[in-house]
Amino acid sequence: MSPRKSIPVLEPVPIPRGTAEHEAARKSILEDFAASIPDDLQLLSQDYLDAAPKNVLSAPRQCGLLSPEELAITEDYDATALAKAVAARELTAVQVATAFAKRAIIAHQLTSCLSEWFLDEALERAAALDAHLAATGRTVGRLHGVPVSIKAHIPIAGHWSDGGSLSTRKRDEEDCQMVRILRDAGAVFYCKTNQPQSVMHLESTSYLGRVLNPYNTGLSAGGSTGGEAALVALRGSVLGVGTDIGGSVRAPAAFCGVYGFKATTHTFPTKRFVGRGLPTELNIMPSAGPLCHSLRDMDLFTATVLAAKPYLEDPRIVPIPWTGLSTPRSSTGPLKIGFMMHDGVITPQPPVTRALEWARSRLEEHPSRFEIKTFEPYGTAKAVRNIRLAYYPAGVGDVQQALEDGGEPMYPLTEWILRDASARGPLSAAEVFDLRCERDEFRGEFAAHWTAQDVDLVICPAFVGPACVHETAWYWNYTALWNYVNCPGISVPTPIVAGKKGEEEYGPGEPLGEECRHVRELWAVGDFEGAPVSLQIVARKHHDNELFAGLAALKDVLGLV
Amino acid sequence: MSPRKSIPVLEPVPIPRGTAEHEAARKSILEDFAASIPDDLQLLSQDYLDAAPKNVLSAPRQCGLLSPEELAITEDYDATALAKAVAARELTAVQVATAFAKRAIIAHQLTSCLSEWFLDEALERAAALDAHLAATGRTVGRLHGVPVSIKAHIPIAGHWSDGGSLSTRKRDEEDCQMVRILRDAGAVFYCKTNQPQSVMHLESTSYLGRVLNPYNTGLSAGGSTGGEAALVALRGSVLGVGTDIGGSVRAPAAFCGVYGFKATTHTFPTKRFVGRGLPTELNIMPSAGPLCHSLRDMDLFTATVLAAKPYLEDPRIVPIPWTGLSTPRSSTGPLKIGFMMHDGVITPQPPVTRALEWARSRLEEHPSRFEIKTFEPYGTAKAVRNIRLAYYPAGVGDVQQALEDGGEPMYPLTEWILRDASARGPLSAAEVFDLRCERDEFRGEFAAHWTAQDVDLVICPAFVGPACVHETAWYWNYTALWNYVNCPGISVPTPIVAGKKGEEEYGPGEPLGEECRHVRELWAVGDFEGAPVSLQIVARKHHDNELFAGLAALKDVLGLV
Repeated sequence: MSPRKSIPVLEPVPIPRGTAEHEAARKSILEDFAASIPDDLQLLSQDYLDAAPKNVLSAPRQCGLLSPEELAITEDYDATALAKAVAARELTAVQVATAFAKRAIIAHQLTSCLSEWFLDEALERAAALDAHLAATGRTVGRLHGVPVSIKAHIPIAGHWSDGGSLSTRKRDEEDCQMVRILRDAGAVFYCKTNQPQSVMHLESTSYLGRVLNPYNTGLSAGGSTGGEAALVALRGSVLGVGTDIGGSVRAPAAFCGVYGFKATTHTFPTKRFVGRGLPTELNIMPSAGPLCHSLRDMDLFTATVLAAKPYLEDPRIVPIPWTGLSTPRSSTGPLKIGFMMHDGVITPQPPVTRALEWARSRLEEHPSRFEIKTFEPYGTAKAVRNIRLAYYPAGVGDVQQALEDGGEPMYPLTEWILRDASARGPLSAAEVFDLRCERDEFRGEFAAHWTAQDVDLVICPAFVGPACVHETAWYWNYTALWNYVNCPGISVPTPIVAGKKGEEEYGPGEPLGEECRHVRELWAVGDFEGAPVSLQIVARKHHDNELFAGLAALKDVLGLV
Repeated sequence: MSPRKSIPVLEPVPIPRGTAEHEAARKSILEDFAASIPDDLQLLSQDYLDAAPKNVLSAPRQCGLLSPEELAITEDYDATALAKAVAARELTAVQVATAFAKRAIIAHQLTSCLSEWFLDEALERAAALDAHLAATGRTVGRLHGVPVSIKAHIPIAGHWSDGGSLSTRKRDEEDCQMVRILRDAGAVFYCKTNQPQSVMHLESTSYLGRVLNPYNTGLSAGGSTGGEAALVALRGSVLGVGTDIGGSVRAPAAFCGVYGFKATTHTFPTKRFVGRGLPTELNIMPSAGPLCHSLRDMDLFTATVLAAKPYLEDPRIVPIPWTGLSTPRSSTGPLKIGFMMHDGVITPQPPVTRALEWARSRLEEHPSRFEIKTFEPYGTAKAVRNIRLAYYPAGVGDVQQALEDGGEPMYPLTEWILRDASARGPLSAAEVFDLRCERDEFRGEFAAHWTAQDVDLVICPAFVGPACVHETAWYWNYTALWNYVNCPGISVPTPIVAGKKGEEEYGPGEPLGEECRHVRELWAVGDFEGAPVSLQIVARKHHDNELFAGLAALKDVLGLV
């Protein structure tokens, strides 16, 4: 019997080290992870990884570990097409699960995107689905045979989850509601994906590893659903499930050039996503949503989950009927789109502005279909300040304690997100209510601002730049604003890509302030080469259907798929 | 010039007296109220009141102060019919406003139902509406010329509101959103209605007076929207607006035999209903709704308010499209109705059980249309205990301070509702979150219970008995339960009326516990003669449309109008 060992993974920037006990526990978990991989599944060698280019997107194709059929299964289909192919028996669920599981473990070596991987269970489930289809001629649901990857903190029966620290790691006994609905619809689970310490970074570095951006491993994959984003970008998953309370679906989706949908809260089930929930929910609810490769897959995911009437089990969920991409436009005039070119605090880095201008000019070519306006920013600084306090109404003691319990060092981005609430300490009920009043006052003002601007949708950056250099995702403005006002938002890819360092500079105009100046410095010193650039499309609260109606209208002009 | 004086009103049970300053302030307010009534509008004399029977419903007709035309206007129409008659110019808005304003001030003398009365403003507004219709041939909206009465705490520009104490009384500068929407739809405001101290009794006794039940003035009109209920029952209003956080629309509507709808929270606008809101909103939101004379008026009210898209201004409001009584049934089978004959804690007093049995037997005569089940109670004691704590997360200091500021004595029912929270004191954010978790856990369990019982609607008591004897509305179970789980509920009248004292006794069976025993004692000693008995019909959270679909189906069989 060979000695226990970990799988080799790329790790260009080391993770802070904890106590000896912590490091021993980490090592043990990583060795268990390695042991879950069958001996006969050849993996990338350390030599291969040492020679990897900074863009590793083509590695799964070039490494030679996947058959042509497996490459086709993982590259030529979106979830909708896969479901159709399995239902039509053009592919078996076993073939599909095998291909994605293999590609996922390759992706993990390149980007540390997984927190767990379980091929055997996936194959058993896939075989059962194939048998069911063969015996009955019917699928079990809309996702029959579709592999679905799940963010680490979301419970799947028999698998590990944690609340953002090693000490909170536990094996779950039951599927949470979301997972059960997906399972009942025919989803095949085969892996869980890495998330950051505290689940509150816009990057994804945890005791399990640092998630890298497959477009440029010197950049972050984003967070906190960064494992999903890297995995989907590498096509080791066709459909992933994430959560977003400040940008955690939209930012990583944008960093990795995939689609990511953060619904209005209480659209999707989130019950038991993190134990009984977190005090932030008193004023800021986490939302959930898919990361995937196409508009129709976001629609399929949403339609599938909502068709299960999740509100019958969790009455927090609002039973607005889902019409998605087929939602009729409420007006016959052109779709009114407001471009928020900056948020009033931080002008985005050059390729993001370029992407906004690209989209704007494309849409302006169709004045009968689109009425293009500039959406003036409103109150971003206040929104970001307030949401940071609202995240931790009961103080940061629980987070600190969980790290201390595991001998886990507090990572710099954890310290950063805790800073304001830490300085302030736990609140009283009256103070929590003050935050509530400020929140609702702001939401009312923002709604009036939106009404005054008279737009159906807002298009804006999904982040202050493309994917950021590791350990620099400090500015949540472009995503957290929309959590604070609870508007649904979607990150969509554009054809824009960041060029070589020094190739592209800011246009004229002074920085909007200190943070804006800092972001310019980050641009000047960073190497963003190859980073994809996405945009964010936003609708009013609970106008998730109208958001999808807008996407359907924008699809051809913006080259969405 | 005659000395300042108050209007004579019936007041069979005195109100606790406060400091000399408080009593002077009360006197002054009541004198100002009296001064707002034109000299030429003859009022009921003290002699008339001294000779009044305990049932005063026919007094407006018999007192001789209203013309036959005014009696017809106030008695022969619901709001829908009034709107139609004004739109068709069969009646003028001025005629209608005059009739209802006169009848309202008579009703006030009989029941202390008003907090303010403003004929001149109403006539000016009505005349403007008549002129608009004459000039344009068009109404300004669906409520053109319909008089609408408003609960005291809800702001109307230029009028008084208070938060349940004399010291919080203030003149509002602006309409709140709800009032503005109604005004824009053509409503004519002419009075505001009395509510209890703290706005947290199921009766309505304030520094302005004690609201009496017009069916039996020895009984309460209910609360906290008791002024509305008495006024609507006396047909001094055709459509009133109330609020409900523990039964405050449904209980008074039931006490006074009128229709009362408490929507799921965030269906109707409630912005600025009480200043910036109250800390209870962290876990228990107040809801709003109409009191009126017909199903279609509840539908008209709701359709009118929601047609204004109030969510564009207050994003807390959930934009579920309103279909109301026209909502198609989602199933073709019989409507499944669960009768909750008791709540597991308190068996209702005999006429309420009789009303339940009456309704049940009526419905059982139509097995093809209705599938009748017994709905087993679930967790009422826990729900009531938890909601009492959730009402005052920041403690009861604000309420105490407001009373102290006005030299106002704390009334017994105020002391009663504050008791649990007072003993516990203000909570921390973590404790507020504990309440949140318990609430959502309970809501999930209750939803599972509902699913297991497999019903579309629940029919249950609206209170432990018919209207209660003054100062005995202690048990909120049958209404507060539904606030705790946030289900929409409607009080509907039945033909059942409480008989003379001693005529009707409990059926066999022991009391369910100490509170049940207490309610039996109240029944044994009280005089409930003539009290109408209503039932409550409840649907799942956010199934307000489905609730109305159910009402449409029940209408003919239960004799609803």
